[in-house]
Amino acid sequence: MRFDEAYSGNVFIKSHPSYEKSSTVIYGMPMDWTVSYRPGSRFGPSRIREVSIGLEEYSPYLDRELEDVKYFDAGDIPLPFGNPYKSIELIEHYIDGLMADDKFPLGMGGEHLVSWPVMKAVAKKYPDLAIIHMDAHTDLRVDYEGEPLSHSTPIRKIAEHIGPKNVYSFGIRSGMKEEFDWAKEKGMHISKFEVLEPLKEILPKLAGRPVYVTIDIDVLDPAHAPGTGTVDAGGITSRELLASIHAIAGSDVNVVGADLVEVAPIYDHSEQTANTASKLMREMILGWVK
Amino acid sequence: MRFDEAYSGNVFIKSHPSYEKSSTVIYGMPMDWTVSYRPGSRFGPSRIREVSIGLEEYSPYLDRELEDVKYFDAGDIPLPFGNPYKSIELIEHYIDGLMADDKFPLGMGGEHLVSWPVMKAVAKKYPDLAIIHMDAHTDLRVDYEGEPLSHSTPIRKIAEHIGPKNVYSFGIRSGMKEEFDWAKEKGMHISKFEVLEPLKEILPKLAGRPVYVTIDIDVLDPAHAPGTGTVDAGGITSRELLASIHAIAGSDVNVVGADLVEVAPIYDHSEQTANTASKLMREMILGWVK
Amino acid sequence: MRFDEAYSGNVFIKSHPSYEKSSTVIYGMPMDWTVSYRPGSRFGPSRIREVSIGLEEYSPYLDRELEDVKYFDAGDIPLPFGNPYKSIELIEHYIDGLMADDKFPLGMGGEHLVSWPVMKAVAKKYPDLAIIHMDAHTDLRVDYEGEPLSHSTPIRKIAEHIGPKNVYSFGIRSGMKEEFDWAKEKGMHISKFEVLEPLKEILPKLAGRPVYVTIDIDVLDPAHAPGTGTVDAGGITSRELLASIHAIAGSDVNVVGADLVEVAPIYDHSEQTANTASKLMREMILGWVK
Amino acid sequence: MRFDEAYSGNVFIKSHPSYEKSSTVIYGMPMDWTVSYRPGSRFGPSRIREVSIGLEEYSPYLDRELEDVKYFDAGDIPLPFGNPYKSIELIEHYIDGLMADDKFPLGMGGEHLVSWPVMKAVAKKYPDLAIIHMDAHTDLRVDYEGEPLSHSTPIRKIAEHIGPKNVYSFGIRSGMKEEFDWAKEKGMHISKFEVLEPLKEILPKLAGRPVYVTIDIDVLDPAHAPGTGTVDAGGITSRELLASIHAIAGSDVNVVGADLVEVAPIYDHSEQTANTASKLMREMILGWVK
Amino acid sequence: MRFDEAYSGNVFIKSHPSYEKSSTVIYGMPMDWTVSYRPGSRFGPSRIREVSIGLEEYSPYLDRELEDVKYFDAGDIPLPFGNPYKSIELIEHYIDGLMADDKFPLGMGGEHLVSWPVMKAVAKKYPDLAIIHMDAHTDLRVDYEGEPLSHSTPIRKIAEHIGPKNVYSFGIRSGMKEEFDWAKEKGMHISKFEVLEPLKEILPKLAGRPVYVTIDIDVLDPAHAPGTGTVDAGGITSRELLASIHAIAGSDVNVVGADLVEVAPIYDHSEQTANTASKLMREMILGWVK
Amino acid sequence: MRFDEAYSGNVFIKSHPSYEKSSTVIYGMPMDWTVSYRPGSRFGPSRIREVSIGLEEYSPYLDRELEDVKYFDAGDIPLPFGNPYKSIELIEHYIDGLMADDKFPLGMGGEHLVSWPVMKAVAKKYPDLAIIHMDAHTDLRVDYEGEPLSHSTPIRKIAEHIGPKNVYSFGIRSGMKEEFDWAKEKGMHISKFEVLEPLKEILPKLAGRPVYVTIDIDVLDPAHAPGTGTVDAGGITSRELLASIHAIAGSDVNVVGADLVEVAPIYDHSEQTANTASKLMREMILGWVK
Repeated sequence: MRFDEAYSGNVFIKSHPSYEKSSTVIYGMPMDWTVSYRPGSRFGPSRIREVSIGLEEYSPYLDRELEDVKYFDAGDIPLPFGNPYKSIELIEHYIDGLMADDKFPLGMGGEHLVSWPVMKAVAKKYPDLAIIHMDAHTDLRVDYEGEPLSHSTPIRKIAEHIGPKNVYSFGIRSGMKEEFDWAKEKGMHISKFEVLEPLKEILPKLAGRPVYVTIDIDVLDPAHAPGTGTVDAGGITSRELLASIHAIAGSDVNVVGADLVEVAPIYDHSEQTANTASKLMREMILGWVK
Repeated sequence: MRFDEAYSGNVFIKSHPSYEKSSTVIYGMPMDWTVSYRPGSRFGPSRIREVSIGLEEYSPYLDRELEDVKYFDAGDIPLPFGNPYKSIELIEHYIDGLMADDKFPLGMGGEHLVSWPVMKAVAKKYPDLAIIHMDAHTDLRVDYEGEPLSHSTPIRKIAEHIGPKNVYSFGIRSGMKEEFDWAKEKGMHISKFEVLEPLKEILPKLAGRPVYVTIDIDVLDPAHAPGTGTVDAGGITSRELLASIHAIAGSDVNVVGADLVEVAPIYDHSEQTANTASKLMREMILGWVK
Repeated sequence: MRFDEAYSGNVFIKSHPSYEKSSTVIYGMPMDWTVSYRPGSRFGPSRIREVSIGLEEYSPYLDRELEDVKYFDAGDIPLPFGNPYKSIELIEHYIDGLMADDKFPLGMGGEHLVSWPVMKAVAKKYPDLAIIHMDAHTDLRVDYEGEPLSHSTPIRKIAEHIGPKNVYSFGIRSGMKEEFDWAKEKGMHISKFEVLEPLKEILPKLAGRPVYVTIDIDVLDPAHAPGTGTVDAGGITSRELLASIHAIAGSDVNVVGADLVEVAPIYDHSEQTANTASKLMREMILGWVK
Repeated sequence: MRFDEAYSGNVFIKSHPSYEKSSTVIYGMPMDWTVSYRPGSRFGPSRIREVSIGLEEYSPYLDRELEDVKYFDAGDIPLPFGNPYKSIELIEHYIDGLMADDKFPLGMGGEHLVSWPVMKAVAKKYPDLAIIHMDAHTDLRVDYEGEPLSHSTPIRKIAEHIGPKNVYSFGIRSGMKEEFDWAKEKGMHISKFEVLEPLKEILPKLAGRPVYVTIDIDVLDPAHAPGTGTVDAGGITSRELLASIHAIAGSDVNVVGADLVEVAPIYDHSEQTANTASKLMREMILGWVK
Repeated sequence: MRFDEAYSGNVFIKSHPSYEKSSTVIYGMPMDWTVSYRPGSRFGPSRIREVSIGLEEYSPYLDRELEDVKYFDAGDIPLPFGNPYKSIELIEHYIDGLMADDKFPLGMGGEHLVSWPVMKAVAKKYPDLAIIHMDAHTDLRVDYEGEPLSHSTPIRKIAEHIGPKNVYSFGIRSGMKEEFDWAKEKGMHISKFEVLEPLKEILPKLAGRPVYVTIDIDVLDPAHAPGTGTVDAGGITSRELLASIHAIAGSDVNVVGADLVEVAPIYDHSEQTANTASKLMREMILGWVK
Repeated sequence: MRFDEAYSGNVFIKSHPSYEKSSTVIYGMPMDWTVSYRPGSRFGPSRIREVSIGLEEYSPYLDRELEDVKYFDAGDIPLPFGNPYKSIELIEHYIDGLMADDKFPLGMGGEHLVSWPVMKAVAKKYPDLAIIHMDAHTDLRVDYEGEPLSHSTPIRKIAEHIGPKNVYSFGIRSGMKEEFDWAKEKGMHISKFEVLEPLKEILPKLAGRPVYVTIDIDVLDPAHAPGTGTVDAGGITSRELLASIHAIAGSDVNVVGADLVEVAPIYDHSEQTANTASKLMREMILGWVK
């Protein structure tokens, strides 16, 4: 034991100490200031890291171990409280840097709006980018009560940016009629209620393409993820979500980045949701990073 | 903004301001005084209303919006603490009034006993009434430790009142042997454990008949509804309950009233159950009120 | 019982039905979007109203009953999510209206920033206004990480608006060195740690003056108010806070408005803080409204 | 270790196995069916016993050990759910038995109404009985919304039964104006807000008299006892309550029975209140049983 | 009502008062001192007993009532805090006694390590013993960070003791690669992820053999059992676990003992897990004890 | 923003990045395996660090800022689960290193036993060492149920090591009679119940001496620190504990090391205790490190 070493801190279990030597960078985006209903996801990344010490390093699903992938937990991106404009600017700039360094970006939210600048930055590098989006909510609003930066809008923004036909949403069970209508009209894919079965149909069509996967933890039923701001009954099980991650892992798409958002510890009394999120992160790393 | 307007208060989202113009009346029945195990459901209606602000107004299941139905949230029926006799008398009288005004009664409990005077009042108007009952428990006791007014007795009471053959119970996984035996002997329908599949078989037989639907939230597995007094493992998912509501909506029965009972906020630490209940209320409104 | 009456809703117990006939207006300001640490106070007003049904109507401290004062609970001022600029504009406009109608404004937060537009509006009517401020925190920052609208700034704003010598802070146990230095330099009164004893010394100096009292619930020790965003050990007891309210009631100052802010139900697992807040509201009404 | 011995069960720590050889009998009264606000105290006795395993057996306050007193934990008196009339009849009958056997009755509630039949039974044996009552609430109502059996009425009942001048209430901070007026008019002692100091003045006047002490846990401030139905800010500390128990122990009154009521585990998230109650029970045993 | 009777205590509902006359003995093993992640299961047996009062005595799954089986709840085996070596010695000795008396041992944990001495003792009597193990975790480690007595090792120990081919694990979704490899190499059965379907295939192979069944509550998904130390997403439902118990009941294996371990009340905020465990205990008794 | 920097991690706010340049080292001792009643303090250090982001850097009590002291948060000492012998050996070795480097050791528990090896190591450097001990419990047992390494024994061990006359305990309100007797006989100082007043009397006698201060958070009343394993009513307020820290700061003793132990997040539902602990840490740093 040496005493002069910097503390490794509250990092995701088995994080590699070197940014340079790591293919993948984990980072938190502790922002929840556009949330309309129940805030608290800003503390998600920290709690997911904390409970990750309880994880086994081996995945019996994928027969692979965490030490098989080098990932660096860079901590949370410092974001200015209450200022969504500057926050998304900082996130985009941060991801630009990761892209320049050829890293696989693996983010933890925070509210879903944080995915917008990430996807935008990733799309600069991969003009042919497709989005796989798992969520209870469409997130296709133009604005929320007049505010264009809202956790109800990120999928609309990326859909308009890369073209609605390149966005595939799964598990959707909540949204405004206008949002569903817009998606239909624009040719954007929405699978209502289900994730695994429609995903299996779509994946072959995306073979070879660069894909960014954004998972809102509330795609899970509240039984499986009570610790999130906007719980919505009728969701999928953690088993189906795991199988969906594994379906992507076994397909021919080229995952080039991903995130898991909206874990809110304050509603997660037994830390069930944070523990589930940390297991999902392990499977995303082992399944999607080659 | 005007200052002299009465506050709309803690009402179910999108409640219409006019009783007269509304086809449907929502009311709470905040009573839990006959509960043998864990009380607390008296605060259910208030919490369901409070969390309803998080609801989307559009149902992607039914492709219908809340503004398509006019409903008036009349608040809680004032009930005398600890006096079940007078409470059920007041409830019956209240529902008599609604029936006289041709309203669709949509109640929120409170303990399940509150459904008894409602069903009795509805049966006055619809002599051919059938009951669809979704619950973990038979609720067929004659009395509970000598007390005929108990949350274990409402289905027995209505079955004796309108005839056991007109009562259809689903999802039942708990009760005394005597209760199951009585139902069998009297020709009352009980589907054990399952709701959706047996319901699909029964619905055609009830085509054209007036039906009152009473849902005890504990028909859900404790994973999906921890916030209730008598949790009982092995229940259905919120997805199956939603599908059951939609199956009724798509059938030829004539729903003439309904309730959702036994939400108890004090056991509902992440407000998961109240949120689920508010979504169920939306689907009941959009699916059952023409 | 009539069926055509609008439900009185979730209003503070014994709220009078008429705005015109009431001397006092209670309103909620459900905003928490500038909070740097732990959000959630937007649900404070609703929960304080809900638990107020447990209140006795008589105060044995003041020998007065709630029916002795006519107050109208106007509900929550609708505020745009995530937009502090517009929110404070709307609050100021709302209070302007109350002032024009000669009402006693009694607000419930929400984060402390909501007090700024209220105090500004009240100061228009009472140019000689003094502020009594009970809080754990100075709230004297110029901005918070560059953002001038923050829950760390309301007292600075009002102090600069009406002059620092007219602001009296009590119970302060947290702040930046620069804030304490600024107050000292500008002649603003700050009593560190204590409320009751220094208040008794100050009150005679304010005799006859119009005074607005703003209470941040975190002036209480976390033992007495766990349900708030920024708990800070070493605070006063609820007994001392009650005695401080009564000391003002028994003095010669002319209380012309007041608020109670920062109750956050999500951290208030036994509803202890909301219950305490509802009792404080009762004493403020009975003690300060003539 | 023998295998054929009945498990001692969930009894108060160091309970003596023999009823006959014990001078004192501990019993639970798991009733909460007349509670108007928040029920749950029916589980109080069980939880107090469960946490008592964490107690030290020695009191450094009284320099006495639990083994110095022989007490038998008789478990909970079986009470019929929802039937207060029969419940209080059963309790009275039970205490009659203890009195006939010359036992010191030490009860755990349950709602405060349970103290009424206990006090009535004790008064049969001690016609000169005085009552010391520590509580946040007067409990002097004639009835509650027309119901004469309510947790708001037990002190009125015993005061009318043995004469109001023989009842001494301490720590009272809540009640109707009519209750305070009745007490004043009838010469019943009420100390508002404080317990220890007024108790020290009263105790010498009761020297030599048989005294029954009834403690409602809500005499404590919510900070010290969140786990109760009706929390009320401005109460005393657990330190003051301990000192009050010790003041009685050191006085010349003859304590002939006692109870501690209204612990409600469901609001007691960290089991703080149950732990405090179990310590109070220890001090009551060591201080009051000779 | 008699006063001289020992309190039946906090025992499992309908426990028979006589050890001699009972075929089955229920006992708790309140130990959690080798737990690496989140301790607390030592309080499991006590809470399962407490909530068992909410159970119906009749099983509609098995059409059998609790009074059909005589079982004696012997309480918790007293275990020395922090000393796993002595604890497992005491447990083994205790079970030796039960075996000598021809009792069916039905244990409640506590951490999973407690099952090791039980299985060892049962194997003395039944040399042909097979183990059915339902768990999220392999529990096949040789040691945990150098410590051979750990809750990660009990299945390894029994597998080495009676031969790995006699051990059948189901529902496993977590473990080290080395553990899975060891099982494969040694011919031990492991069904990953699923319980019911593979169990149905294995049961006929075990026909006529004596079988001990050990159930770790975390075989359930966290949605169904949040109240345990090591939650792990992707588990089975309580419905599948009930069906698995019933599949064993309907098979030709000879169940000679069983346990249910790892219920940890401190993470079980709505007591959902304890209630589920008490129902599982009922089904184990009614299904497995002839 | 650079991307190649190691994440600063979950460290105490304003931790200095350099061990060499820091006068003080903060470290966690995440051990709770000898705890007899309610475990969980192993997660204390991590949560105290997490909530420290809510701290102001300035102390209005001491008029000093965190940047005035250089301290390095070294993270948690890795300790082997369930092995107290090796754990205390590792802790002692770690502190030996800090002492050799002339650092001020500032530890966070974990259970109180961790203080024993720290105090032993500090005593090697300071043969004239005195101990100031604030706690609800004597911690003077020779062993706990035969086990000499227990959280009930650390003060006995250090007292025997450096002589009982050099140990001063304050706030003690729980222990065995034998422990109090032993202290009295051996001339060890114990102040029962109170901390501040007796401390003020003792401090002058310790002027100039090297002193190690060990604070068990349970010296606070449960109202002020519900988040600990062994809550005990009748404790001091956080205000008195802060004043006691300041009294030592203002005295002539030479504080040479300190710790704060027994924070257990799992019982700390609103994070009140962790927040209080992080403030106490700030005051200990600013008051005791010159």
